[in-house]
Amino acid sequence: MVHAAAGEVRAEVPASCRAQIRAGAFTGQTAGLAPGFVQGNVIILPDSHAGDFLRFAQANPKPCPLLAVGEPGNPHLPSLGADIDIRTDLPRYRVFRDGIADADDPLEIGDIWRDDLVTFVIGCSFSFEEALIQDGLDVRHVSLGRNVPMYRSTIPLVPAGRFGGGMVVSMRPFKPADAIRAVQVTSRFPAVHGAPVHLTDPAAIGINDLMRADFGDDPVIGPGEIPVFWACGVTPQVAVEAAKPPIAIAHVPGHMLITDLRNARLAVI
Amino acid sequence: MVHAAAGEVRAEVPASCRAQIRAGAFTGQTAGLAPGFVQGNVIILPDSHAGDFLRFAQANPKPCPLLAVGEPGNPHLPSLGADIDIRTDLPRYRVFRDGIADADDPLEIGDIWRDDLVTFVIGCSFSFEEALIQDGLDVRHVSLGRNVPMYRSTIPLVPAGRFGGGMVVSMRPFKPADAIRAVQVTSRFPAVHGAPVHLTDPAAIGINDLMRADFGDDPVIGPGEIPVFWACGVTPQVAVEAAKPPIAIAHVPGHMLITDLRNARLAVI
Repeated sequence: MVHAAAGEVRAEVPASCRAQIRAGAFTGQTAGLAPGFVQGNVIILPDSHAGDFLRFAQANPKPCPLLAVGEPGNPHLPSLGADIDIRTDLPRYRVFRDGIADADDPLEIGDIWRDDLVTFVIGCSFSFEEALIQDGLDVRHVSLGRNVPMYRSTIPLVPAGRFGGGMVVSMRPFKPADAIRAVQVTSRFPAVHGAPVHLTDPAAIGINDLMRADFGDDPVIGPGEIPVFWACGVTPQVAVEAAKPPIAIAHVPGHMLITDLRNARLAVI
Repeated sequence: MVHAAAGEVRAEVPASCRAQIRAGAFTGQTAGLAPGFVQGNVIILPDSHAGDFLRFAQANPKPCPLLAVGEPGNPHLPSLGADIDIRTDLPRYRVFRDGIADADDPLEIGDIWRDDLVTFVIGCSFSFEEALIQDGLDVRHVSLGRNVPMYRSTIPLVPAGRFGGGMVVSMRPFKPADAIRAVQVTSRFPAVHGAPVHLTDPAAIGINDLMRADFGDDPVIGPGEIPVFWACGVTPQVAVEAAKPPIAIAHVPGHMLITDLRNARLAVI
């Protein structure tokens, strides 16, 4: 795997990472790979469900900010990288049939690809976490080498066709003054979930046990810190549980699509 | 008193308000007067203390954002309004001698004006409150017709010469999602205190009884709301208590200088 030196953003790194993932030489989580470049959440749906999902994403831009939409049956996403083949370029996939995940998470999906599948790539918090860390804030799960804690919340999503349900949120703990700074920094990145959706009382958004995450790792919260919640790109997987399409293919949380887009270019100011 | 219609910003309104205040026809709080125009906190100090105070303000820009500084002995502030005479244009003054406030708050200060007095005008939260309200947020004390609750906090100020102490903060309660939006809106206005300095636990910044304000009116907090704290332009009055200059003259909290500057021009984006 190609790692860039701290602060260095080398244009060839994302394609190099993808090549190794495509070859099966890397199957792990992608946090920390290709620093400076956008990573994406992925959801692949049959064309029969693509229109509803497009409307769903448009109506719920905080959890589902669309970075790219593929053409039906076409596994390439040239706006994110000339060489991308979505059938091989994620480290690990999760396959849902009628809304239920298969027991096994495959390393590639060429054998189940269909001519009617449409790929959606959705912004990921890795982009704004890089900005938080550059600002000097402690992003706890990153500094501890853990995955971000994610939760099913009761924050309602605007339904579209068969897609709906509650928003999935990710949580990062901060001291109050750092939480205020984190609101400012992440507000600059609306294409990767933007500002938080909630802070403090977890029960107010239906999270009854903050110390037990529904996805990712359980949190580590220090004294005097408050939980700050952001909309999360795992939300489409929960919406797929509700919509029950005959097939849907996503990334395994944390195992993202590495793109050629630069995080810095997603900042609105 | 001249009131403008909702949404209307008429250039002649500030001078008209000042003329009535100057004539003694208005001696009350200035909240809601001259909508769209900047109001300022005022602190007037002897030249012997002006250098230290300038350094103090520069080192503490969140509580003490300087909008204008007068020339020694000159009561005019042409950059804020051609007609301004600081000896008559505040509705009510507070006079401190050796750091202790006089029992009476005079309506003008011509009789105690000196050739060595320097006027400092500091941004006021009225400007960002207007932006919060235009955004659709409920600014509680405004909607209830009360003065904002203000508190002495233990947030340390950077000392300069004889000036120092703890920051005075103002508090506005919001539901968490509205608090996040309030951070965004007020971040656009660094010249009028900008983003909050704290939220949630009042004891973390030395406020032991949130329901009892040190200045202004006591708060009204609804269920599910969290307290959000901003740096406050009353801070210089507390610093004057510490510095104990032979004389210092301030506005009575809420009785501000109405200027010709437009709130909208203070927004950085």
